[in-house]
Amino acid sequence: MAMELTRTVEFAMVDLANIAYYPRIFDLAHRFFESTWPEICGLPYHDVLAKRRLGFPVVKVESEFLSPLRYGDTIRCVISIASIGRSSVVWRYRLHNQNGELVWTSVQTTVCVNMDSMDPTELPSDIRTGLEHHIEAEV
Amino acid sequence: MAMELTRTVEFAMVDLANIAYYPRIFDLAHRFFESTWPEICGLPYHDVLAKRRLGFPVVKVESEFLSPLRYGDTIRCVISIASIGRSSVVWRYRLHNQNGELVWTSVQTTVCVNMDSMDPTELPSDIRTGLEHHIEAEV
Amino acid sequence: MAMELTRTVEFAMVDLANIAYYPRIFDLAHRFFESTWPEICGLPYHDVLAKRRLGFPVVKVESEFLSPLRYGDTIRCVISIASIGRSSVVWRYRLHNQNGELVWTSVQTTVCVNMDSMDPTELPSDIRTGLEHHIEAEV
Amino acid sequence: MAMELTRTVEFAMVDLANIAYYPRIFDLAHRFFESTWPEICGLPYHDVLAKRRLGFPVVKVESEFLSPLRYGDTIRCVISIASIGRSSVVWRYRLHNQNGELVWTSVQTTVCVNMDSMDPTELPSDIRTGLEHHIEAEV
Repeated sequence: MAMELTRTVEFAMVDLANIAYYPRIFDLAHRFFESTWPEICGLPYHDVLAKRRLGFPVVKVESEFLSPLRYGDTIRCVISIASIGRSSVVWRYRLHNQNGELVWTSVQTTVCVNMDSMDPTELPSDIRTGLEHHIEAEV
Repeated sequence: MAMELTRTVEFAMVDLANIAYYPRIFDLAHRFFESTWPEICGLPYHDVLAKRRLGFPVVKVESEFLSPLRYGDTIRCVISIASIGRSSVVWRYRLHNQNGELVWTSVQTTVCVNMDSMDPTELPSDIRTGLEHHIEAEV
Repeated sequence: MAMELTRTVEFAMVDLANIAYYPRIFDLAHRFFESTWPEICGLPYHDVLAKRRLGFPVVKVESEFLSPLRYGDTIRCVISIASIGRSSVVWRYRLHNQNGELVWTSVQTTVCVNMDSMDPTELPSDIRTGLEHHIEAEV
Repeated sequence: MAMELTRTVEFAMVDLANIAYYPRIFDLAHRFFESTWPEICGLPYHDVLAKRRLGFPVVKVESEFLSPLRYGDTIRCVISIASIGRSSVVWRYRLHNQNGELVWTSVQTTVCVNMDSMDPTELPSDIRTGLEHHIEAEV
Protein backbone atom coordinates (compact mmCIF):
# COMPACT_ATOMS: atom_id res chain seq x y z
CA MET A 1 0.00 0.00 0.00
CA ALA A 2 1.32 3.42 -0.92
CA MET A 3 2.30 5.92 1.76
CA GLU A 4 0.86 9.42 1.67
CA LEU A 5 2.42 12.58 3.02
CA THR A 6 1.65 16.27 2.68
CA ARG A 7 3.82 19.39 2.66
CA THR A 8 3.46 22.97 1.56
CA VAL A 9 5.52 24.63 -1.16
CA GLU A 10 7.53 27.23 0.75
CA PHE A 11 8.95 30.54 -0.39
CA ALA A 12 12.46 29.19 -0.86
CA MET A 13 11.34 26.61 -3.44
CA VAL A 14 10.17 28.95 -6.18
CA ASP A 15 12.06 30.89 -8.82
CA LEU A 16 11.55 34.34 -10.32
CA ALA A 17 8.58 33.02 -12.33
CA ASN A 18 6.96 31.67 -9.11
CA ILE A 19 7.54 28.10 -10.28
CA ALA A 20 9.37 25.59 -8.13
CA TYR A 21 13.00 25.47 -9.29
CA TYR A 22 13.25 21.88 -10.50
CA PRO A 23 16.19 20.74 -8.33
CA ARG A 24 14.08 21.74 -5.32
CA ILE A 25 11.32 19.36 -6.37
CA PHE A 26 13.90 16.59 -5.96
CA ASP A 27 14.75 18.12 -2.58
CA LEU A 28 11.06 18.07 -1.69
CA ALA A 29 10.88 14.42 -2.77
CA HIS A 30 13.82 13.65 -0.48
CA ARG A 31 12.02 15.27 2.45
CA PHE A 32 9.04 13.02 1.75
CA PHE A 33 11.43 10.05 1.44
CA GLU A 34 12.91 10.86 4.86
CA SER A 35 9.43 10.88 6.38
CA THR A 36 8.64 7.34 5.28
CA TRP A 37 11.23 5.61 7.48
CA PRO A 38 9.33 5.41 10.76
CA GLU A 39 6.61 3.54 8.88
CA ILE A 40 9.12 1.31 7.08
CA CYS A 41 11.31 0.28 10.01
CA GLY A 42 10.20 2.16 13.11
CA LEU A 43 13.14 4.58 13.07
CA PRO A 44 13.50 8.13 11.75
CA TYR A 45 15.91 8.34 8.84
CA HIS A 46 18.56 10.14 10.90
CA ASP A 47 18.72 7.07 13.16
CA VAL A 48 18.86 4.74 10.14
CA LEU A 49 21.98 6.70 9.13
CA ALA A 50 23.49 7.23 12.58
CA LYS A 51 22.51 4.09 14.49
CA ARG A 52 22.06 1.43 11.84
CA ARG A 53 24.85 2.94 9.73
CA LEU A 54 22.87 2.50 6.53
CA GLY A 55 22.40 5.03 3.75
CA PHE A 56 20.28 4.98 0.59
CA PRO A 57 21.90 7.16 -2.07
CA VAL A 58 20.07 7.61 -5.34
CA VAL A 59 21.70 5.97 -8.37
CA LYS A 60 19.02 6.49 -11.02
CA VAL A 61 16.22 8.98 -11.50
CA GLU A 62 13.45 9.38 -14.04
CA SER A 63 11.00 12.24 -13.63
CA GLU A 64 8.22 13.98 -15.47
CA PHE A 65 7.33 17.57 -14.59
CA LEU A 66 3.68 17.74 -15.57
CA SER A 67 2.57 21.03 -14.11
CA PRO A 68 4.22 23.82 -12.09
CA LEU A 69 4.39 23.79 -8.29
CA ARG A 70 3.78 27.31 -6.98
CA TYR A 71 4.36 29.06 -3.67
CA GLY A 72 1.65 28.08 -1.20
CA ASP A 73 0.56 24.92 -3.01
CA THR A 74 -0.27 21.98 -0.77
CA ILE A 75 1.44 18.92 -2.16
CA ARG A 76 0.25 15.42 -1.43
CA CYS A 77 2.94 12.85 -2.12
CA VAL A 78 2.12 9.23 -2.81
CA ILE A 79 5.16 7.01 -2.37
CA SER A 80 5.25 3.34 -3.18
CA ILE A 81 7.87 0.70 -3.84
CA ALA A 82 8.14 -0.58 -7.41
CA SER A 83 10.67 -3.33 -6.76
CA ILE A 84 13.28 -4.57 -4.29
CA GLY A 85 16.62 -6.21 -5.17
CA ARG A 86 19.44 -7.49 -2.99
CA SER A 87 20.56 -3.96 -2.06
CA SER A 88 18.54 -1.80 -4.45
CA VAL A 89 15.08 -0.36 -3.99
CA VAL A 90 13.01 1.32 -6.67
CA TRP A 91 10.76 4.07 -5.30
CA ARG A 92 7.83 5.64 -7.12
CA TYR A 93 6.74 9.20 -6.35
CA ARG A 94 3.57 10.97 -7.44
CA LEU A 95 2.98 14.56 -6.34
CA HIS A 96 -0.51 16.07 -6.51
CA ASN A 97 -1.46 19.65 -5.75
CA GLN A 98 -4.44 20.89 -3.74
CA ASN A 99 -6.63 20.66 -6.87
CA GLY A 100 -5.91 16.96 -7.21
CA GLU A 101 -3.78 17.59 -10.27
CA LEU A 102 -0.83 15.22 -10.79
CA VAL A 103 2.11 17.64 -11.05
CA TRP A 104 5.21 15.45 -10.86
CA THR A 105 6.15 11.79 -11.04
CA SER A 106 9.45 10.12 -10.44
CA VAL A 107 10.92 6.65 -10.32
CA GLN A 108 14.14 6.50 -8.33
CA THR A 109 16.55 3.70 -7.60
CA THR A 110 18.49 3.78 -4.34
CA VAL A 111 21.25 1.43 -3.21
CA CYS A 112 21.62 0.42 0.41
CA VAL A 113 25.17 1.25 1.54
CA ASN A 114 27.15 0.87 4.71
CA MET A 115 27.68 4.43 5.98
CA ASP A 116 31.22 3.70 7.12
CA SER A 117 32.54 2.14 3.92
CA MET A 118 29.90 3.59 1.54
CA ASP A 119 29.90 0.11 -0.07
CA PRO A 120 26.64 -1.49 -1.20
CA THR A 121 25.26 -3.89 1.36
CA GLU A 122 22.35 -6.31 1.47
CA LEU A 123 19.07 -4.87 2.74
CA PRO A 124 18.46 -6.03 6.31
CA SER A 125 15.40 -8.29 6.51
CA ASP A 126 13.31 -5.96 8.70
CA ILE A 127 13.79 -3.09 6.25
CA ARG A 128 13.05 -5.41 3.32
CA THR A 129 9.85 -6.51 5.01
CA GLY A 130 8.90 -2.92 5.81
CA LEU A 131 9.42 -1.94 2.20
CA GLU A 132 7.46 -4.95 0.90
CA HIS A 133 4.34 -3.61 2.65
CA HIS A 134 4.42 -0.69 0.26
CA ILE A 135 4.96 -2.51 -3.03
CA GLU A 136 2.50 -1.38 -5.64
CA ALA A 137 1.88 -2.83 -9.06
CA GLU A 138 2.64 -0.56 -12.03
CA VAL A 139 0.42 2.53 -11.87
CA MET B 1 29.99 19.96 -31.09
CA ALA B 2 29.55 19.60 -27.36
CA MET B 3 30.18 22.53 -25.01
CA GLU B 4 32.52 22.10 -22.08
CA LEU B 5 32.43 23.95 -18.77
CA THR B 6 34.15 23.48 -15.43
CA ARG B 7 33.10 24.19 -11.85
CA THR B 8 34.21 23.15 -8.41
CA VAL B 9 32.08 21.22 -5.93
CA GLU B 10 31.57 23.70 -3.12
CA PHE B 11 30.96 23.15 0.58
CA ALA B 12 27.22 23.72 0.35
CA MET B 13 26.74 20.86 -2.13
CA VAL B 14 27.74 17.95 0.08
CA ASP B 15 25.87 16.07 2.76
CA LEU B 16 26.96 14.57 6.07
CA ALA B 17 28.70 11.73 4.22
CA ASN B 18 30.66 14.25 2.10
CA ILE B 19 28.73 13.22 -1.00
CA ALA B 20 26.90 15.76 -3.13
CA TYR B 21 23.24 15.75 -2.08
CA TYR B 22 21.57 14.58 -5.29
CA PRO B 23 19.16 17.53 -5.81
CA ARG B 24 22.23 19.78 -5.79
CA ILE B 25 23.72 17.87 -8.72
CA PHE B 26 20.66 18.97 -10.68
CA ASP B 27 21.29 22.49 -9.37
CA LEU B 28 24.90 22.22 -10.57
CA ALA B 29 23.66 21.05 -13.97
CA HIS B 30 21.37 24.09 -14.13
CA ARG B 31 24.33 26.38 -13.44
CA PHE B 32 26.17 24.75 -16.34
CA PHE B 33 23.01 25.09 -18.45
CA GLU B 34 22.86 28.82 -17.66
CA SER B 35 26.47 29.22 -18.80
CA THR B 36 25.81 27.85 -22.27
CA TRP B 37 23.55 30.67 -23.44
CA PRO B 38 26.14 33.22 -24.54
CA GLU B 39 27.54 30.55 -26.89
CA ILE B 40 24.07 29.54 -28.09
CA CYS B 41 22.59 32.96 -28.80
CA GLY B 42 25.03 35.65 -27.68
CA LEU B 43 23.08 36.54 -24.53
CA PRO B 44 23.46 35.51 -20.90
CA TYR B 45 20.50 33.45 -19.68
CA HIS B 46 19.22 36.27 -17.48
CA ASP B 47 18.78 38.38 -20.60
CA VAL B 48 17.10 35.50 -22.43
CA LEU B 49 14.56 35.54 -19.58
CA ALA B 50 14.32 39.30 -19.06
CA LYS B 51 14.81 40.73 -22.55
CA ARG B 52 13.67 37.99 -24.90
CA ARG B 53 10.98 36.88 -22.42
CA LEU B 54 11.77 33.21 -23.04
CA GLY B 55 12.18 30.49 -20.43
CA PHE B 56 13.19 26.84 -20.71
CA PRO B 57 11.61 24.85 -17.86
CA VAL B 58 12.49 21.19 -17.57
CA VAL B 59 9.67 18.76 -18.31
CA LYS B 60 11.51 15.44 -18.27
CA VAL B 61 14.69 14.21 -16.64
CA GLU B 62 16.61 10.95 -16.74
CA SER B 63 19.82 10.67 -14.75
CA GLU B 64 22.36 8.13 -13.65
CA PHE B 65 24.51 8.78 -10.60
CA LEU B 66 27.61 6.74 -11.35
CA SER B 67 30.03 7.88 -8.68
CA PRO B 68 29.95 10.40 -5.79
CA LEU B 69 30.85 14.05 -6.22
CA ARG B 70 32.84 15.22 -3.19
CA TYR B 71 33.77 18.59 -1.74
CA GLY B 72 36.63 20.08 -3.73
CA ASP B 73 36.16 17.96 -6.83
CA THR B 74 36.66 19.77 -10.12
CA ILE B 75 33.78 18.87 -12.40
CA ARG B 76 34.02 19.11 -16.15
CA CYS B 77 30.60 19.21 -17.77
CA VAL B 78 30.06 18.21 -21.37
CA ILE B 79 26.74 19.49 -22.69
CA SER B 80 25.31 18.65 -26.06
CA ILE B 81 21.96 18.73 -27.77
CA ALA B 82 20.30 15.39 -28.49
CA SER B 83 17.35 16.71 -30.47
CA ILE B 84 15.30 19.81 -31.20
CA GLY B 85 11.53 19.95 -31.72
CA ARG B 86 9.18 22.84 -32.39
CA SER B 87 9.46 24.15 -28.84
CA SER B 88 11.29 21.32 -27.06
CA VAL B 89 15.01 20.76 -26.72
CA VAL B 90 16.67 17.61 -25.39
CA TRP B 91 19.92 18.32 -23.56
CA ARG B 92 22.53 15.72 -22.69
CA TYR B 93 24.85 16.24 -19.70
CA ARG B 94 27.94 14.27 -18.76
CA LEU B 95 29.89 15.24 -15.65
CA HIS B 96 33.46 14.07 -15.16
CA ASN B 97 35.63 14.59 -12.10
CA GLN B 98 39.31 15.63 -12.01
CA ASN B 99 40.35 11.98 -12.48
CA GLY B 100 38.47 11.78 -15.76
CA GLU B 101 35.86 9.54 -14.20
CA LEU B 102 32.31 9.87 -15.56
CA VAL B 103 30.30 10.58 -12.41
CA TRP B 104 26.86 11.63 -13.65
CA THR B 105 24.84 11.65 -16.84
CA SER B 106 21.49 13.17 -17.58
CA VAL B 107 19.14 13.64 -20.49
CA GLN B 108 16.72 16.52 -19.95
CA THR B 109 13.88 17.86 -22.02
CA THR B 110 13.06 21.56 -21.78
CA VAL B 111 10.17 23.41 -23.36
CA CYS B 112 10.53 26.94 -24.65
CA VAL B 113 7.88 29.13 -22.99
CA ASN B 114 6.85 32.73 -23.17
CA MET B 115 7.82 34.20 -19.77
CA ASP B 116 4.69 36.34 -19.62
CA SER B 117 2.11 33.66 -20.35
CA MET B 118 4.28 30.63 -19.46
CA ASP B 119 2.78 29.00 -22.57
CA PRO B 120 4.94 26.89 -24.88
CA THR B 121 6.18 28.84 -27.87
CA GLU B 122 8.14 28.01 -30.98
CA LEU B 123 11.92 28.25 -30.68
CA PRO B 124 13.12 31.44 -32.38
CA SER B 125 15.28 30.66 -35.41
CA ASP B 126 18.50 32.17 -34.03
CA ILE B 127 18.26 30.04 -30.89
CA ARG B 128 17.40 26.98 -32.97
CA THR B 129 20.47 27.59 -35.11
CA GLY B 130 22.63 28.15 -32.05
CA LEU B 131 21.43 24.89 -30.54
CA GLU B 132 21.95 22.99 -33.80
CA HIS B 133 25.68 23.74 -33.62
CA HIS B 134 25.82 21.55 -30.53
CA ILE B 135 23.86 18.54 -31.74
CA GLU B 136 25.71 15.35 -31.05
CA ALA B 137 24.88 11.85 -32.22
CA GLU B 138 24.03 9.34 -29.48
CA VAL B 139 27.04 8.90 -27.16
CA MET C 1 2.97 37.25 23.48
CA ALA C 2 5.56 35.30 21.55
CA MET C 3 4.57 32.80 18.88
CA GLU C 4 5.94 29.26 19.03
CA LEU C 5 6.51 26.89 16.13
CA THR C 6 8.31 23.58 15.74
CA ARG C 7 10.18 21.99 12.84
CA THR C 8 12.68 19.20 12.39
CA VAL C 9 16.22 19.63 11.07
CA GLU C 10 16.14 17.76 7.79
CA PHE C 11 18.91 16.01 5.88
CA ALA C 12 19.44 18.88 3.45
CA MET C 13 20.27 21.35 6.23
CA VAL C 14 23.48 19.76 7.51
CA ASP C 15 27.03 19.87 6.23
CA LEU C 16 29.78 17.27 6.11
CA ALA C 17 30.33 17.66 9.87
CA ASN C 18 26.59 17.02 10.51
CA ILE C 19 26.13 20.62 11.62
CA ALA C 20 23.50 22.83 10.03
CA TYR C 21 25.20 24.94 7.36
CA TYR C 22 24.69 28.44 8.75
CA PRO C 23 22.88 30.01 5.75
CA ARG C 24 20.28 27.23 6.13
CA ILE C 25 19.55 28.33 9.70
CA PHE C 26 18.48 31.65 8.21
CA ASP C 27 16.41 29.68 5.72
CA LEU C 28 14.85 27.75 8.62
CA ALA C 29 14.10 31.06 10.35
CA HIS C 30 12.39 32.27 7.18
CA ARG C 31 10.19 29.16 7.12
CA PHE C 32 9.17 29.93 10.71
CA PHE C 33 8.60 33.57 9.71
CA GLU C 34 6.29 32.46 6.88
CA SER C 35 4.27 30.37 9.33
CA THR C 36 3.45 33.33 11.58
CA TRP C 37 1.30 35.22 9.07
CA PRO C 38 -2.02 33.45 9.56
CA GLU C 39 -1.79 34.38 13.24
CA ILE C 40 -0.72 37.96 12.44
CA CYS C 41 -3.29 38.84 9.79
CA GLY C 42 -5.36 35.77 8.98
CA LEU C 43 -3.61 35.10 5.67
CA PRO C 44 -0.81 32.73 4.68
CA TYR C 45 2.33 34.60 3.62
CA HIS C 46 1.88 33.63 -0.04
CA ASP C 47 -1.42 35.51 -0.03
CA VAL C 48 0.16 38.49 1.74
CA LEU C 49 2.55 38.60 -1.23
CA ALA C 50 0.11 37.72 -4.00
CA LYS C 51 -3.17 39.27 -2.85
CA ARG C 52 -2.16 42.13 -0.59
CA ARG C 53 0.92 42.84 -2.74
CA LEU C 54 3.10 43.35 0.34
CA GLY C 55 6.57 41.93 0.98
CA PHE C 56 8.84 42.06 4.00
CA PRO C 57 12.47 41.84 2.87
CA VAL C 58 15.17 41.71 5.52
CA VAL C 59 17.40 44.78 5.77
CA LYS C 60 19.37 44.03 8.92
CA VAL C 61 20.33 40.83 10.74
CA GLU C 62 22.16 40.08 13.96
CA SER C 63 22.59 36.46 15.00
CA GLU C 64 24.40 34.36 17.54
CA PHE C 65 25.07 30.70 16.82
CA LEU C 66 25.25 29.23 20.31
CA SER C 67 25.24 25.50 19.65
CA PRO C 68 25.07 23.27 16.55
CA LEU C 69 21.79 22.14 15.01
CA ARG C 70 22.11 18.52 13.90
CA TYR C 71 20.16 16.24 11.59
CA GLY C 72 17.02 15.03 13.36
CA ASP C 73 16.93 17.76 16.00
CA THR C 74 13.49 19.09 16.82
CA ILE C 75 13.67 22.87 16.85
CA ARG C 76 11.20 25.00 18.76
CA CYS C 77 11.20 28.57 17.50
CA VAL C 78 10.01 31.43 19.67
CA ILE C 79 9.25 34.52 17.57
CA SER C 80 8.32 37.87 18.99
CA ILE C 81 8.24 41.47 17.83
CA ALA C 82 10.82 43.81 19.33
CA SER C 83 9.52 47.02 17.78
CA ILE C 84 7.36 48.43 14.99
CA GLY C 85 8.05 51.57 12.97
CA ARG C 86 6.17 53.20 10.12
CA SER C 87 7.19 50.49 7.65
CA SER C 88 9.83 48.57 9.59
CA VAL C 89 9.36 45.64 11.95
CA VAL C 90 12.04 44.18 14.22
CA TRP C 91 11.62 40.44 14.76
CA ARG C 92 13.30 38.41 17.47
CA TYR C 93 14.01 34.70 16.97
CA ARG C 94 15.12 32.17 19.56
CA LEU C 95 15.65 28.55 18.50
CA HIS C 96 15.76 25.79 21.09
CA ASN C 97 16.53 22.12 20.47
CA GLN C 98 14.73 19.09 21.94
CA ASN C 99 16.90 19.31 25.07
CA GLY C 100 15.66 22.83 25.78
CA GLU C 101 19.04 24.27 24.83
CA LEU C 102 19.03 27.72 23.26
CA VAL C 103 20.95 27.12 20.01
CA TRP C 104 20.43 30.29 17.97
CA THR C 105 19.14 33.81 18.39
CA SER C 106 18.54 36.50 15.85
CA VAL C 107 17.18 40.01 15.66
CA GLN C 108 16.03 40.93 12.16
CA THR C 109 14.64 44.11 10.70
CA THR C 110 12.25 43.85 7.79
CA VAL C 111 10.77 46.67 5.71
CA CYS C 112 7.24 46.51 4.37
CA VAL C 113 7.35 47.03 0.60
CA ASN C 114 4.83 47.23 -2.19
CA MET C 115 5.44 44.08 -4.27
CA ASP C 116 4.84 45.93 -7.54
CA SER C 117 7.19 48.86 -6.99
CA MET C 118 9.35 47.25 -4.27
CA ASP C 119 9.20 50.66 -2.53
CA PRO C 120 8.79 50.89 1.25
CA THR C 121 5.19 51.43 2.27
CA GLU C 122 3.41 52.08 5.54
CA LEU C 123 2.30 49.00 7.44
CA PRO C 124 -1.47 48.53 7.02
CA SER C 125 -3.29 48.96 10.32
CA ASP C 126 -4.56 45.37 10.57
CA ILE C 127 -1.04 44.00 10.15
CA ARG C 128 0.31 46.55 12.62
CA THR C 129 -2.32 45.47 15.14
CA GLY C 130 -1.59 41.79 14.50
CA LEU C 131 2.12 42.38 15.08
CA GLU C 132 1.48 44.41 18.24
CA HIS C 133 -0.08 41.35 19.86
CA HIS C 134 3.34 39.73 19.74
CA ILE C 135 5.47 42.55 21.10
CA GLU C 136 7.74 41.34 23.84
CA ALA C 137 9.95 43.40 26.12
CA GLU C 138 13.68 42.81 25.80
CA VAL C 139 14.49 39.19 26.66
CA MET D 1 45.15 44.22 2.52
CA ALA D 2 41.64 43.15 1.61
CA MET D 3 41.04 40.23 -0.74
CA GLU D 4 38.78 40.69 -3.76
CA LEU D 5 36.72 38.04 -5.50
CA THR D 6 33.96 38.12 -8.11
CA ARG D 7 30.97 35.89 -8.76
CA THR D 8 27.73 36.15 -10.66
CA VAL D 9 24.26 35.99 -9.11
CA GLU D 10 22.84 32.78 -10.52
CA PHE D 11 19.25 31.76 -11.19
CA ALA D 12 18.95 29.67 -8.03
CA MET D 13 19.71 32.64 -5.77
CA VAL D 14 16.69 34.78 -6.52
CA ASP D 15 13.12 34.64 -5.28
CA LEU D 16 9.80 35.30 -6.97
CA ALA D 17 10.47 39.05 -6.87
CA ASN D 18 13.86 38.52 -8.61
CA ILE D 19 15.69 39.52 -5.44
CA ALA D 20 18.31 37.27 -3.88
CA TYR D 21 16.64 35.30 -1.07
CA TYR D 22 18.57 36.57 1.94
CA PRO D 23 19.84 33.20 3.27
CA ARG D 24 21.48 32.70 -0.13
CA ILE D 25 23.47 35.91 0.28
CA PHE D 26 25.04 34.26 3.32
CA ASP D 27 25.62 31.20 1.14
CA LEU D 28 27.26 33.43 -1.46
CA ALA D 29 29.44 34.95 1.28
CA HIS D 30 30.49 31.45 2.32
CA ARG D 31 31.52 30.65 -1.26
CA PHE D 32 33.69 33.77 -1.24
CA PHE D 33 35.05 32.74 2.19
CA GLU D 34 36.01 29.33 0.80
CA SER D 35 37.91 30.98 -2.04
CA THR D 36 40.19 32.96 0.28
CA TRP D 37 42.02 29.97 1.77
CA PRO D 38 44.64 29.38 -0.90
CA GLU D 39 45.76 32.98 -0.38
CA ILE D 40 45.64 32.65 3.43
CA CYS D 41 47.49 29.35 3.85
CA GLY D 42 48.23 27.87 0.44
CA LEU D 43 45.51 25.24 0.67
CA PRO D 44 41.94 25.08 -0.68
CA TYR D 45 39.35 25.06 2.11
CA HIS D 46 38.45 21.42 1.49
CA ASP D 47 42.02 20.48 2.35
CA VAL D 48 41.98 22.72 5.43
CA LEU D 49 39.00 20.62 6.55
CA ALA D 50 40.19 17.21 5.34
CA LYS D 51 43.95 17.36 5.76
CA ARG D 52 44.54 19.89 8.53
CA ARG D 53 41.32 18.80 10.31
CA LEU D 54 40.38 22.41 11.04
CA GLY D 55 36.98 24.02 10.60
CA PHE D 56 35.78 27.60 11.00
CA PRO D 57 32.08 27.62 11.95
CA VAL D 58 30.36 30.96 12.28
CA VAL D 59 29.31 31.96 15.79
CA LYS D 60 28.17 35.53 15.26
CA VAL D 61 26.84 37.47 12.28
CA GLU D 62 25.86 41.08 11.72
CA SER D 63 24.66 42.11 8.27
CA GLU D 64 23.08 45.01 6.48
CA PHE D 65 21.16 44.44 3.25
CA LEU D 66 21.53 47.77 1.50
CA SER D 67 20.23 47.04 -1.97
CA PRO D 68 18.83 43.98 -3.79
CA LEU D 69 21.04 41.49 -5.62
CA ARG D 70 19.34 40.43 -8.84
CA TYR D 71 19.79 37.58 -11.29
CA GLY D 72 22.77 38.27 -13.53
CA ASP D 73 24.42 40.84 -11.26
CA THR D 74 28.19 40.62 -11.06
CA ILE D 75 29.17 40.80 -7.41
CA ARG D 76 32.61 41.93 -6.30
CA CYS D 77 33.34 40.82 -2.74
CA VAL D 78 35.91 42.60 -0.60
CA ILE D 79 36.95 40.44 2.36
CA SER D 80 39.21 41.61 5.13
CA ILE D 81 40.04 40.57 8.67
CA ALA D 82 38.82 42.86 11.45
CA SER D 83 40.54 41.06 14.34
CA ILE D 84 42.15 37.79 15.38
CA GLY D 85 41.89 36.15 18.80
CA ARG D 86 43.30 32.90 20.15
CA SER D 87 40.87 30.79 18.15
CA SER D 88 38.43 33.39 16.84
CA VAL D 89 38.63 35.42 13.64
CA VAL D 90 36.39 38.35 12.73
CA TRP D 91 35.78 38.64 8.99
CA ARG D 92 34.40 41.68 7.22
CA TYR D 93 32.50 41.34 3.93
CA ARG D 94 31.45 44.07 1.53
CA LEU D 95 29.56 43.12 -1.63
CA HIS D 96 29.35 45.55 -4.54
CA ASN D 97 27.37 45.10 -7.73
CA GLN D 98 28.49 45.86 -11.30
CA ASN D 99 27.49 49.52 -10.85
CA GLY D 100 29.86 49.91 -7.93
CA GLU D 101 26.97 50.08 -5.50
CA LEU D 102 27.57 48.67 -2.02
CA VAL D 103 24.74 46.13 -1.68
CA TRP D 104 25.58 44.11 1.43
CA THR D 105 27.95 44.23 4.37
CA SER D 106 28.59 41.69 7.06
CA VAL D 107 30.85 41.19 10.04
CA GLN D 108 31.19 37.54 10.99
CA THR D 109 33.02 35.81 13.82
CA THR D 110 34.29 32.28 13.24
CA VAL D 111 35.91 29.95 15.74
CA CYS D 112 38.70 27.60 14.75
CA VAL D 113 37.69 24.04 15.71
CA ASN D 114 39.26 20.63 15.52
CA MET D 115 37.17 18.74 12.93
CA ASP D 116 37.35 15.49 14.89
CA SER D 117 36.24 16.81 18.28
CA MET D 118 34.56 20.02 17.04
CA ASP D 119 36.22 21.71 20.05
CA PRO D 120 37.73 25.19 19.72
CA THR D 121 41.45 25.09 19.11
CA GLU D 122 44.19 27.69 18.84
CA LEU D 123 44.81 29.08 15.38
CA PRO D 124 47.98 27.53 13.92
CA SER D 125 50.69 30.13 13.44
CA ASP D 126 50.85 29.89 9.64
CA ILE D 127 47.12 30.51 9.36
CA ARG D 128 47.35 33.34 11.88
CA THR D 129 50.12 34.93 9.81
CA GLY D 130 48.15 34.43 6.60
CA LEU D 131 45.12 36.12 8.14
CA GLU D 132 47.21 39.01 9.53
CA HIS D 133 48.15 39.99 5.97
CA HIS D 134 44.51 40.87 5.41
CA ILE D 135 43.80 42.88 8.54
CA GLU D 136 42.15 46.15 7.70
CA ALA D 137 41.41 49.06 10.01
CA GLU D 138 37.74 49.88 10.53
CA VAL D 139 36.13 50.84 7.22
